[in-house]
Amino acid sequence: MPQSRKSAAQHAESHKLDPKKPLGGEGLRGQTAGSTALCTVGKTGTGLTYRGYDISDLATKAEFEEVAFLLLKGKLPNRAELAKYKNTLVAYRGLPMALKTVLEAIPATAHPMDVMRTGCSVLGNLEQEHDFSEEHDKADRLLALLPAIICYWYRYSHHGVRIETYNDQSSLGGFFLHMLTGTPPSDMFKQAMNCSLILYAEHEFNASTFAARVCASTLSDIHSCVCAAIGTLRGPLHGGANEAAMDMIEQWQSPDEAEQGILKKLANKEKVMGFGHAIYREADPRNALIKVWAEKLSKDAHDPVLYDISVRVEEVMKREKNLFCNADFFHAPAYHFMEIPTKLFTPIFVMSRVTGWAAHVFEQRAHNRIIRPSADYIGPPPRDWVAIEDRH
Amino acid sequence: MPQSRKSAAQHAESHKLDPKKPLGGEGLRGQTAGSTALCTVGKTGTGLTYRGYDISDLATKAEFEEVAFLLLKGKLPNRAELAKYKNTLVAYRGLPMALKTVLEAIPATAHPMDVMRTGCSVLGNLEQEHDFSEEHDKADRLLALLPAIICYWYRYSHHGVRIETYNDQSSLGGFFLHMLTGTPPSDMFKQAMNCSLILYAEHEFNASTFAARVCASTLSDIHSCVCAAIGTLRGPLHGGANEAAMDMIEQWQSPDEAEQGILKKLANKEKVMGFGHAIYREADPRNALIKVWAEKLSKDAHDPVLYDISVRVEEVMKREKNLFCNADFFHAPAYHFMEIPTKLFTPIFVMSRVTGWAAHVFEQRAHNRIIRPSADYIGPPPRDWVAIEDRH
Repeated sequence: MPQSRKSAAQHAESHKLDPKKPLGGEGLRGQTAGSTALCTVGKTGTGLTYRGYDISDLATKAEFEEVAFLLLKGKLPNRAELAKYKNTLVAYRGLPMALKTVLEAIPATAHPMDVMRTGCSVLGNLEQEHDFSEEHDKADRLLALLPAIICYWYRYSHHGVRIETYNDQSSLGGFFLHMLTGTPPSDMFKQAMNCSLILYAEHEFNASTFAARVCASTLSDIHSCVCAAIGTLRGPLHGGANEAAMDMIEQWQSPDEAEQGILKKLANKEKVMGFGHAIYREADPRNALIKVWAEKLSKDAHDPVLYDISVRVEEVMKREKNLFCNADFFHAPAYHFMEIPTKLFTPIFVMSRVTGWAAHVFEQRAHNRIIRPSADYIGPPPRDWVAIEDRH
Repeated sequence: MPQSRKSAAQHAESHKLDPKKPLGGEGLRGQTAGSTALCTVGKTGTGLTYRGYDISDLATKAEFEEVAFLLLKGKLPNRAELAKYKNTLVAYRGLPMALKTVLEAIPATAHPMDVMRTGCSVLGNLEQEHDFSEEHDKADRLLALLPAIICYWYRYSHHGVRIETYNDQSSLGGFFLHMLTGTPPSDMFKQAMNCSLILYAEHEFNASTFAARVCASTLSDIHSCVCAAIGTLRGPLHGGANEAAMDMIEQWQSPDEAEQGILKKLANKEKVMGFGHAIYREADPRNALIKVWAEKLSKDAHDPVLYDISVRVEEVMKREKNLFCNADFFHAPAYHFMEIPTKLFTPIFVMSRVTGWAAHVFEQRAHNRIIRPSADYIGPPPRDWVAIEDRH
């Protein structure tokens, strides 16, 4: 994080509190910057659809690889197509030797999102997209490899282990969890991760996706576009909310302590991460879907505390501020029960969202105009040159 | 390049030729996406000012390091400030060992812009920006180090040489040229490079700068912002024009042959790179400034041909299409006479523009709102889930 989370949160909060702040065209909020066939946010049904399918259907009935296929290839796969696609992704799991060398050169102190961005960037050197006819192949390779990139670095830098990035897990979520711990994950963990990856796959013109489209609009390569997106998601106003929620809820030992903590934060006008949304007004449709898994995992772990704390925080925020949980909040206890280190929460977001980013890059390329807005000039008027000896 | 230059150019051209193409809000052309005190493009005087100073004054009277100081610190430095700043940049020239390891792992076949993006990304792992109070320091380090990143990779991968990235050149342009060839550059080469770096330093809300600001708007770190910008500049519709101009003009042996070649291209409706501009309507004020240096360098080399060819191309394009040279066109012969390999032209653009990018990141952070536009939805209406066995 470039700032401590607290200061970033305070920064965000300060914008809400100052009605006199001149925003002008800044943030482009509500302005149309293009078109998409991929996603609606807050427009119909429960509010979130991928190519017309409701997120509730997708998250409870689909495999993540089906959703990736839907976003990237334009339709839900039939059984043969899905089997073939999953085989392709499995075959793409091997890390090039040069990429392993790079990951081993990155210290354990690095920010995991910097590792993801660097892994993607290095891959662009080793397996360059020479022509847009290769775009599907390059996107599939990135999708298959990003879990290996983060796990290889994490296990090497933190545990001194050079892991194999092949294992017999057929799903992306299972592949990740198996590499992370070195042991096959339970069916429940795999199912919960499947749901999580589906929920994070796509979300219209959010900042990281828009960065990918700006990059794509110069007809740059897909690795550049995904690097831009990863770097943008890294910011605490975008991708860091599930990690910030975890840091918050794990401070408390009981629901009552959590309630007191939240009330104190609200009294101090501190921002509580994981609540509210820039687009949704009444609820985030992803919340109920991941909350179910947080509860199941809590019971499976015979450890109710963190889930009960999360539920209490949700209740207090609704009662005190009429704010709802967004997708990130119940991801915190869910990932915690899956034994995932907090610092890897946002990289999981990348492993999923790369599908949406790549699909937006394809769209931008198919109907491209370079994205080049204008600026209001607020600097000094034209002025004469001053020789260096005359300057103060 | 993700596409051959020709197909990218034809892609760009096809947009101009089809008046029925629905653009809507796409490209955000003419729409205000924020404010800046850094630059005007096409608004006053010769059209380009940095913090109110005319580009003609800057390019003929300043050192590049003065311009970098102006953009990054907000004012022209006095003599003591400039000396101190140049010393800071010289002190920042050392490549970390881990970054050398990464650069040695990148093959000679890589795209040089991918190397620049990766070098910046790796630096973010090794020297993370933990807090925005470090932003000036991190920007100065990037400015000092980007020439070393590209030269270290280039000399190692192409010539098998591990270069020292310290030398006694006091200017950034001299530092780069010295590393590239291993010998001290002439005063004329250093002066021409100084002018070139000033011309490329800043240009308002162009696509790469806008990508940096979108990334900055999530409060991400500066290395992520610069990676996004490098990847965006990499696209052939943005940073590749000087390289494309070089590839074109070096095909021809004489001005007459060049004239025939251009007429043939125009008859075939091929795009001629290095002409026209998205914002400037009558002339690019940077053209005359670099053209002077192309001519001087040509005379210095006792090799008039490539300069004469360039002048003829300029004349024919004016006569036939009423199109003017932009900043990129005469950069091609100028860099050629400085003995710079064509594939390193766009990385030089990065070495310079990192000043403008960083200054825009500082501005975005100082008055931030997350950049999150909307999209027009053009996809399928809400539809029911279809079980996999019922799909075709």
